[in-house]
Amino acid sequence: MAGASGYTGGELLRYLLGHPQVEIKSVLANSQAGSKLTTLFPNLKGFLDLTLETADWEQLSQDNDLVFLCLPHGTSQEPVSILIKNGCKVVDLGADFRLQSPDLYESTYGAEHLFPELLEQAAYGLPELNRDKIKNANLVANPGCYPTASTLALLPILSKGPLAQPPIIDAKSGVSGAGRGAKVDSLYCEVNENFRAYAVGTHRHQPEIEQNVGQPVMFTPHLVPMTRGILATVYVGLPTDGLLEHYQEFYSREPFVEVLTDSLPSTKSVGGTNFCKLAVKAAGHPDYTIVISAIDNLGKGAAGTAVHNMNLMFGLPETTGLQAPGLFP
Amino acid sequence: MAGASGYTGGELLRYLLGHPQVEIKSVLANSQAGSKLTTLFPNLKGFLDLTLETADWEQLSQDNDLVFLCLPHGTSQEPVSILIKNGCKVVDLGADFRLQSPDLYESTYGAEHLFPELLEQAAYGLPELNRDKIKNANLVANPGCYPTASTLALLPILSKGPLAQPPIIDAKSGVSGAGRGAKVDSLYCEVNENFRAYAVGTHRHQPEIEQNVGQPVMFTPHLVPMTRGILATVYVGLPTDGLLEHYQEFYSREPFVEVLTDSLPSTKSVGGTNFCKLAVKAAGHPDYTIVISAIDNLGKGAAGTAVHNMNLMFGLPETTGLQAPGLFP
Amino acid sequence: MAGASGYTGGELLRYLLGHPQVEIKSVLANSQAGSKLTTLFPNLKGFLDLTLETADWEQLSQDNDLVFLCLPHGTSQEPVSILIKNGCKVVDLGADFRLQSPDLYESTYGAEHLFPELLEQAAYGLPELNRDKIKNANLVANPGCYPTASTLALLPILSKGPLAQPPIIDAKSGVSGAGRGAKVDSLYCEVNENFRAYAVGTHRHQPEIEQNVGQPVMFTPHLVPMTRGILATVYVGLPTDGLLEHYQEFYSREPFVEVLTDSLPSTKSVGGTNFCKLAVKAAGHPDYTIVISAIDNLGKGAAGTAVHNMNLMFGLPETTGLQAPGLFP
Amino acid sequence: MAGASGYTGGELLRYLLGHPQVEIKSVLANSQAGSKLTTLFPNLKGFLDLTLETADWEQLSQDNDLVFLCLPHGTSQEPVSILIKNGCKVVDLGADFRLQSPDLYESTYGAEHLFPELLEQAAYGLPELNRDKIKNANLVANPGCYPTASTLALLPILSKGPLAQPPIIDAKSGVSGAGRGAKVDSLYCEVNENFRAYAVGTHRHQPEIEQNVGQPVMFTPHLVPMTRGILATVYVGLPTDGLLEHYQEFYSREPFVEVLTDSLPSTKSVGGTNFCKLAVKAAGHPDYTIVISAIDNLGKGAAGTAVHNMNLMFGLPETTGLQAPGLFP
Repeated sequence: MAGASGYTGGELLRYLLGHPQVEIKSVLANSQAGSKLTTLFPNLKGFLDLTLETADWEQLSQDNDLVFLCLPHGTSQEPVSILIKNGCKVVDLGADFRLQSPDLYESTYGAEHLFPELLEQAAYGLPELNRDKIKNANLVANPGCYPTASTLALLPILSKGPLAQPPIIDAKSGVSGAGRGAKVDSLYCEVNENFRAYAVGTHRHQPEIEQNVGQPVMFTPHLVPMTRGILATVYVGLPTDGLLEHYQEFYSREPFVEVLTDSLPSTKSVGGTNFCKLAVKAAGHPDYTIVISAIDNLGKGAAGTAVHNMNLMFGLPETTGLQAPGLFP
Repeated sequence: MAGASGYTGGELLRYLLGHPQVEIKSVLANSQAGSKLTTLFPNLKGFLDLTLETADWEQLSQDNDLVFLCLPHGTSQEPVSILIKNGCKVVDLGADFRLQSPDLYESTYGAEHLFPELLEQAAYGLPELNRDKIKNANLVANPGCYPTASTLALLPILSKGPLAQPPIIDAKSGVSGAGRGAKVDSLYCEVNENFRAYAVGTHRHQPEIEQNVGQPVMFTPHLVPMTRGILATVYVGLPTDGLLEHYQEFYSREPFVEVLTDSLPSTKSVGGTNFCKLAVKAAGHPDYTIVISAIDNLGKGAAGTAVHNMNLMFGLPETTGLQAPGLFP
Repeated sequence: MAGASGYTGGELLRYLLGHPQVEIKSVLANSQAGSKLTTLFPNLKGFLDLTLETADWEQLSQDNDLVFLCLPHGTSQEPVSILIKNGCKVVDLGADFRLQSPDLYESTYGAEHLFPELLEQAAYGLPELNRDKIKNANLVANPGCYPTASTLALLPILSKGPLAQPPIIDAKSGVSGAGRGAKVDSLYCEVNENFRAYAVGTHRHQPEIEQNVGQPVMFTPHLVPMTRGILATVYVGLPTDGLLEHYQEFYSREPFVEVLTDSLPSTKSVGGTNFCKLAVKAAGHPDYTIVISAIDNLGKGAAGTAVHNMNLMFGLPETTGLQAPGLFP
Repeated sequence: MAGASGYTGGELLRYLLGHPQVEIKSVLANSQAGSKLTTLFPNLKGFLDLTLETADWEQLSQDNDLVFLCLPHGTSQEPVSILIKNGCKVVDLGADFRLQSPDLYESTYGAEHLFPELLEQAAYGLPELNRDKIKNANLVANPGCYPTASTLALLPILSKGPLAQPPIIDAKSGVSGAGRGAKVDSLYCEVNENFRAYAVGTHRHQPEIEQNVGQPVMFTPHLVPMTRGILATVYVGLPTDGLLEHYQEFYSREPFVEVLTDSLPSTKSVGGTNFCKLAVKAAGHPDYTIVISAIDNLGKGAAGTAVHNMNLMFGLPETTGLQAPGLFP
């Protein structure tokens, strides 16, 4: 696994340790090569005593059936091309293969995509949206955290056709979504007791959401003083009648999506898990409905779905390694 | 001051201690009568060494020019009737005199209003909305915290006439808004690492907001794991062109509302103060604008405005006692 | 399991769900009888859909091989007497059977012990101290959270004989240690940004620690603004030479105690687990050594050890159900 | 003021804005020169609209009666030499002039002191310890945060002569003590839900404490998941009899130290202020006493004392600008 020094990488290792069919061969992180993994993740002490290495992509593609990449956008493309060429499957948790259009990639991430032909091969890895394609893919682009919470909130509606008004997605995330980089904005003292919006109208996850739902959306991300969790409050211009039943039916066979009927989602109730919890509520106005969606940004929003995708790619039972309840409190 | 054992009462005392024209005669709290105030508010030790008393409203109305009430809804009406009858001014920080229609009060708070004739006398105490009426009032109904943040976000728009679509107010509050009562839902372990919506479509502040803005709204409150602050993200169906300039002009003479042009509001930037900070932003969709509003729910959302109202009622400079910057970090 | 509505009860259920040899027959909580368990523990939704019941101890003793009790002190004695009489094993996570002397129980908890003859039967359930007795016991008194962290820090030293000076145990706990009761002192707004000592020189865990270590100690508990975790910093009047090696040797066969050599313990590194991490450090003074001990108060300090004790009582491998790594971050 | 981009600098500006005799002429921060101050400190918006500048020490010494320095250790020495030479008074909030012995400075900070002759001129700026010297000094070395809390806890005892056993100082600090630098260890996700000790036996504040108290101490710092505050729990080998009264008498004329008799200190009760609160408690052992000391590390532990020192240096009433109560909650 590559990019093992960040929060997503560490969470993925935690899931993989509980997966009975997985053997972790190596952990890579160029910037921290030579460090013990457990220096970065003391929770893994006694479970995985590996040392971080630099990446040799040719060698990796020979030693592994699948490689997970947790790399910054722009840096996955070259490694993916080598791994795929050599017949190694890839789940890329970064952003490089999420947008199917090379032009949209370029306008969103500010650089030309180096391997547009690989974009065509990549399956967008949201199982509830794309299960069959994922099963047959060698390259899966794991979704962004906000797009996961947002798309699952809207998917049942959009199967009925586009909405007249753009859905409004007011999304709130814990700080682990900003990664483990040493940035002043992520310091404890800047975040604690501080709730704020950011990247209003300009966040890179907006085009990904629009690609998933097939229509324009409004999307406002906010930073919450907590470590894990995303809660998206989604306003749609539809009456509420019958919607709850439709959501229940739509997700009735999904192992990781639960439509609540007697409570509201909360980030703590999904922390440390691969579950998405949804509620469908009247909005106090007859023409609108509110859909609330909660996930763990590091779980269902990243590492959990990566394991789910691996299970699909290898024909394993979908819930393997993903079945433990989270902590409360 | 009555209701001095709660968070709003304590914050009001803190402001009043810094007000050069105020003498605090007594602090009342039936449930805690006999306790030293500084047991409940250790920050006031050395500043206000009073003991909490039970209320004798007749006596109070003789000893004071003004009484502040920080009482649960339903319990201010009788005290207000006595105080006003005896010529004592009142700023009521509770909910009993905020809704001008007795019917709306009854349907919202579940009990008949006992003094509908006093409802008519009461001035709704949002200075930016109602300054002249407050100046001449003997009874001022201090606004709710969510209605303050929401109304200030919408006021400049509504002076232009009602919106075709109801504004969507996605509001987030720190836990002090739930008061100092011993409730499981307010325990540290329930709130920490837990972001969630509550009272979706049923919150009692919604009718108050609609009264202020003169049209239906959608309003969704959320609980943030932090002590102080409200941030409201408001979606309005208007193009952004010229709106920022309109907001700046509209609030140019208001001492406690600032329209930001080069940053976004955050709760920490207004913590411990009577300021409201606003931003007017394009929403990523040409037909909509996002207005973001931040206040301290205990400051501009309660105690700060109460002092502002007192200043107006007594003809004092409006900013007296309200001018200190907040803490950062 | 009885007392299932509190934090310890919920955490124990989470562990038991991951234990392959356990079937949870019923969950009891008199105060919440009739409620669904998942209303109190939303993390268990989909895993354990039981309704809380009132206790019928006679019936329970027939239906179960073992009953866990998570009850307030003073309320376990009668239930234990019934369960034990009927041949049902008990792990009592409360305080009623921890102190072996009835007199010490009475002076510490302010009431006479009703079943002193059961006190004699009870095994004190710290496996590292008392493994053999636990294996053969029908009644195990699960240790307190502070005594667990403190005793494990001192055990290797005390095997060498009493210390000339009393060890100083400066202990810090997250708020979940105060339970799920609705108390003002446990409210988010009281705890957040507030670090303080409490019960200085009077905490009920001090006699339990002294019983374990066989000599007087000084013990100062503090409250940390966090949900889970205890860190105890223990000062002992011994030179550091050779101590680290002694600790490593002493705990070399213990599956849940780790002596760190290249880092310091932290509460996050043991959160959600049954591990205790220790460090043995020079104190900056030649005559003293500092031992630092970290546990999860709900894990190794309560529910994890309860499962460990159950494993011992039934001859199961000790680590069954206790082997998952915790979360980071 | 120099070093205005960090937390101490911002807090000092907040205090100075409330000081009636101070005019802030310029704010300096080489790394952020050209930025608006209010970008870094949004709480100061509307109060101090200055732009950060690079330092010209010659010019500064002509334009100001006093310069505050909030610079990293090793970088104050040259500026101080210029400012003092030109007759400008200095309060140095950094570490460069706290240790009176050049050798101790070198062994502690790993570099030779460039101006040992200035060390002799510098007054150590703890008013309770050194009031008279501060009044006559041109250069005041503001104490470290831990040394402030620790020394105030021990000062009344040490006036009676050295203790036979070294006092044990178990100290806990909020994260703002680590500064505003972009470090992984200070990230929200690393600190939240994480209590830990650090720098055990090696912290640079230990020699400073020992210099103040005149004997060896043991000192263990810990990191608390909160923004502000230090609480030091100090164990001294003295019986408790009469000590409380001695502390009360010792500090009876100090405006910023309060000895509590009916409660325990907490960090929140001193947050945002220049107060130190102390308690003197029996330790559960007849030969020992526990002294607990709470300050705001940015207030009494840094910026508040800097203002106090300025007041002393200019013959102003000591409490000028330092009299507002803090927030609760």
